[in-house]
This record gives sequence, structure tokens and C-alpha cells, in this order.
Amino acid sequence: MRLATFRRHGDEPHVRQVGLVLGQGEHVRVHPFDPGFDLVGLLAGSPEWRDSQADVAAAGDGLPLDEIVLLPPVYPVAMRDFLTFEAHVDGMERGHGNPGPPAAWYDAPVFLFMAPHAVTGPYDDVPMPPDTERLDFELEVAAIVCRDVRDVTPEEARDAIGGYCVMNDWSARDVQGKEMSLKLGPSKGKDFATTIGPWVVTADELDDCRDAEGFLDLEMTVRVNEQPIGGDRSGHMGWSFEQLVSHASRASWVKAGEVLASGTCSTGSLAESWGRNGSLVPPPLQVGDVVEMTIERLGTIRNRVAPPEESVAPVAPARRRTRLEASA
Amino acid sequence: MRLATFRRHGDEPHVRQVGLVLGQGEHVRVHPFDPGFDLVGLLAGSPEWRDSQADVAAAGDGLPLDEIVLLPPVYPVAMRDFLTFEAHVDGMERGHGNPGPPAAWYDAPVFLFMAPHAVTGPYDDVPMPPDTERLDFELEVAAIVCRDVRDVTPEEARDAIGGYCVMNDWSARDVQGKEMSLKLGPSKGKDFATTIGPWVVTADELDDCRDAEGFLDLEMTVRVNEQPIGGDRSGHMGWSFEQLVSHASRASWVKAGEVLASGTCSTGSLAESWGRNGSLVPPPLQVGDVVEMTIERLGTIRNRVAPPEESVAPVAPARRRTRLEASA
Repeated sequence: MRLATFRRHGDEPHVRQVGLVLGQGEHVRVHPFDPGFDLVGLLAGSPEWRDSQADVAAAGDGLPLDEIVLLPPVYPVAMRDFLTFEAHVDGMERGHGNPGPPAAWYDAPVFLFMAPHAVTGPYDDVPMPPDTERLDFELEVAAIVCRDVRDVTPEEARDAIGGYCVMNDWSARDVQGKEMSLKLGPSKGKDFATTIGPWVVTADELDDCRDAEGFLDLEMTVRVNEQPIGGDRSGHMGWSFEQLVSHASRASWVKAGEVLASGTCSTGSLAESWGRNGSLVPPPLQVGDVVEMTIERLGTIRNRVAPPEESVAPVAPARRRTRLEASA
Repeated sequence: MRLATFRRHGDEPHVRQVGLVLGQGEHVRVHPFDPGFDLVGLLAGSPEWRDSQADVAAAGDGLPLDEIVLLPPVYPVAMRDFLTFEAHVDGMERGHGNPGPPAAWYDAPVFLFMAPHAVTGPYDDVPMPPDTERLDFELEVAAIVCRDVRDVTPEEARDAIGGYCVMNDWSARDVQGKEMSLKLGPSKGKDFATTIGPWVVTADELDDCRDAEGFLDLEMTVRVNEQPIGGDRSGHMGWSFEQLVSHASRASWVKAGEVLASGTCSTGSLAESWGRNGSLVPPPLQVGDVVEMTIERLGTIRNRVAPPEESVAPVAPARRRTRLEASA
């Protein structure tokens, strides 16, 4: 089952409605559930109950995509981004002058918490963020958590993953590089936009896409201005999504409404090529570029880089004071 | 005005009520607001309206602290931790074998997003997290955001900060170090507990604590097992909280209910001493240790390190696959 969040053209900006997605290509129609239905709540329910609700929605009129705005399927209560594709880590490390992934990468699936308010809709324009000359994309699979869990095994975690969607973790590489030199991981380098969508495909719908070890194995591709530029398979993750949830849940809550992302697949970003090539080839994104990401069975998100919005001025440099005192 | 979140002993675990804190020391009493009042909503209201609501609460009976459980004053919609104390960065960098803060530190206030579900109450026990032999504390000031802002100047940001409280950003330094070697910043090294409290002091109450440049300047101290172990002044931050909000808001939302923290003050953690001393002196925290943090005007939080809870087993190492393919 495919579940979308949307509003109609002309609705107030705060309106969000959940719909059942039926049909393919030009024949896609979004059939609204009754107001009050929550996408994460639908994911958390039993498949039988969800099916019965979907039957009611399907019986109503469907809306073509040109009558609605698709919104981010969820507004996450928290967002974690992992780093699970070995070949991507390999390319990025080469960009830092290292021979390949550090040994620590293999031990456990590291992640960072992301800006939860930066999610944007699957076809929204993304304004060029300030301070960057190296705008990049990151092709990822995102899992939507539908139940609160803590200290669960990978087997137990399976029930907590309600569905999956495509994600573009837009990145300002020059800003990010500076931030990472301070050992805190990226913040402003990644907090301006994270595109998720176009809708959520429920986990039960993807059981036939698992490999022998249970890893979700879907083809992932990215195109820039209609030219294929990269792609991989989600089966190349070093850990399954169930393992990611289990790891995150150790002595910590993972809550309904969270989004957990795979991290960038290999060749799913420009920076990996920059690392391997030792130069900015292919070039960073420019205003007007259109980035299109497709994951088998999950759909396509497509976003144009828009001119920058007006931003407030950068803050002043640090007030220096304690340095002098500390060395006194 | 001081505002606390609490439940009475015997209340269901999900119950949260907001109260006005009156009195000092043993005479502290928490006077409940009517159910339905929200702490962030009280911070966002005008001082006059808040005062009138407080008058109503003050007229009712007050509860002594032994009749209630103080909860985290807010359950953040997002949490950012900055790195603003120059002398702390200096000590940490020495621990990494560097001569002092990198030049990039001075340019802009870097931050990370933290685990928003890990907040714990001001007097709660904190179980020893798994996988660590280097448990540490971090003494910080936290600001509570009460309005949604985007692209605001420091002057405009002032209105968005509703109040302040004490924060202990508990850290498993060995876990954190390993994660930071992967350039994503700490995740499991810091996601098990972040103590905030004991209550929120409204920003208008602290206008007399600002220095000539408008920086909040409060004495901060930390004691372990009743022995003073570190302390600093919030005036030693490299940027004011208004500048932190402004920076975070550049091309991005900062939303009501967020917590923005100063980062660790100098000598406000053990790791800074480990960096300077080149050895684990003072020793890492052990089960039974009590960490007590006091910030002038904001109050005291006090937490005992409890025995570890039972955790799920670590996940398996990465499935190696693409490495072979990539190098083929």
C-alpha cells in the first residue's frame, strides 16, 4: 500500500491530509482518507485494519497529482541518518586522503541526528542555501518508524518499521567540511532541505524485495537534468534497516514518527566522485538543475534547485576572551 | 518566573503538569497551573499575561518537592548542542594532540542535533550506558525556544528565547571517540541521557545578569560526590544565545519547543582534564557517583549514576560485499 500526505491547491498552508495512492504514471490518483487519519497511525495498525480503511478511501474519488501538492509523507519527531554503504564511505575517505573506510566503520552502524524541520515535499523546489559553492545531493532509502521501541533485537525491530520512501539529503559540502573539522558532524551543511517522498510504501508490500539475509534489495538511481549520474542497490547496505533500528534502540528510545535513513548509496552523490577523481567532476549543482531520484517500488522524487532566498547575515566571529585567560 | 514540569507520586507515567515554582531551598513549593497549560505556551505569552496566570496558580496550594517528581521541563521537538566555550575546545583539542582550537572554530558557532527523546528529569538516576568505561558529564546552559523563527537577526532572536535551565549532556567518551573518527559526530555516545532542569527561569527574569555586550553571565559549577570539580561563567561563551539562534535560523527553521545548549563550559567535563593531563585524571564516573550541577539563578540538578539496565546485544559487524565489488 502507498500512503501520501498532501493538500489541495488553495488549502491553507497548515492543512495536511493523508491519501491512498492508486494507479501508475499519469494515472496515479490520491484517494483521501477521512480527516483525522494519521499516516504513522495507519502504518502502526494491523494490515487487515489498514486494508479495510483503504477500501473505504478507494471507494471515494481520487485526485490527480495536478490538483494537489504532495507534502513530506511525515514531519519527523526525530531523524537519523546512517552511513551504511561501504563503497560510498570508501570514496569519501579517499577525498580526505585516506586509503578507504576506517576499521571502526565495520564495527557498528554510525549515525547522526538530522534537522527534523528541514523536510521538503517530493516535487518542491529547493532554494540554493547560503555560503556554498558545492551543493550536492545524497540518494538514500528512508524508513518510517511506527512504534516506540527501546532495546529491541533486529527481529523485534521489524514490527517497528512501517514503510519506506526515497530521500535526498541535500548537502552543502564546503559548509559541511568546515563543520566536520570541528568534530561535531554537519549541521548548517545539511539543515536547509531534506526531501522525502513521493509517498510511503508499507513494509508488508516489500517482502518480495528482500535478499536471502533479509536485506531490502531495491535498485536506486539518480539523474541530474535527465542524465543518469549514479545508482546502486539497497542490498549493498552493510546493515539491514532492522539492524539499524536495533542499534539505535540500545539504551535509547526510537519513537513512532522517526525517520531512519540508509545514508548515501555508492555513486549517489557528487562528493564521492570528487573524492575518487580528486577534482570537482561532475560539477556542483547550480540554480536551475533538476535532481531526480528513483527507487524501485518506492517511486520518484524530483526537485529543482531554485535561486537563493534572502538570508539573514552571518553572525560575528567568536568573542575571544577565555583563550587569553586560559593561557594566562 | 520559574516554571516546572512535574507529576505527583502515584500519577500515571504519562501525566505531565506545569507548575509555578515559589520559595527557596527547603521552602520550594510548586503551584500547579490548570491542566492544559503548556510550559512553552507560557513562555511564548506576554509577561503581563503570564504574570496574571501565575497569580492564579500562586493562590492555590503549593506542593513540596517530596510530593512530586520533577520531569524534564520540556520534551524537545529538536535539540541542538553548540560548542561555544573556547577554553573547553582548547582542552579537548589537546587531547587529540592538537595545539588548540582550529581556526574554523572562531568563524561561526558549530552545533549538532542531539537525541531529543533522551531528556531525563533533574533528580533522576542515570543508568550506566552500555559499552563504556569512560562515562563523563558536561555542564551546560540550555535555552528554551518559544516561537518558530527563520532567518532572524540576533536582535530578533531575543524574543524567541523563552527561558533557560541547567543541562548535563552525559557522554560516553570512548563510544563518542570511535563515532567521531567516522566524521559524523557523536550519536550512541550521547543518546542515552541528557538531564535538563530543575525548572525553566524565564528570560525576562535574567535581564540583570547580562554583561555589557548582552551576554548572559552566570556562574556555573559542578560537583562530583559533593567535591567541587569544575566551573566557569556563561559569559565566557564565544557567542550569545541570541547569536546561536540567529545562526541556526539561517535558511532553516528553529521551532517553539526546541532546546539550544551552550556546549560544555571550561572544566565542566572530565574529558577536558583528560586532554590537558594526558591521563584519565580525574577518573571516569562509576556507578554510585552523584553529579551535581548548579548555575546561578537557574538552580541545581543532581543525578546518581545507577547500575546499567539490561541492553539488547550489539548488532553484527557490517556485511562486507560492495568493497570487493568496488575494487574488482
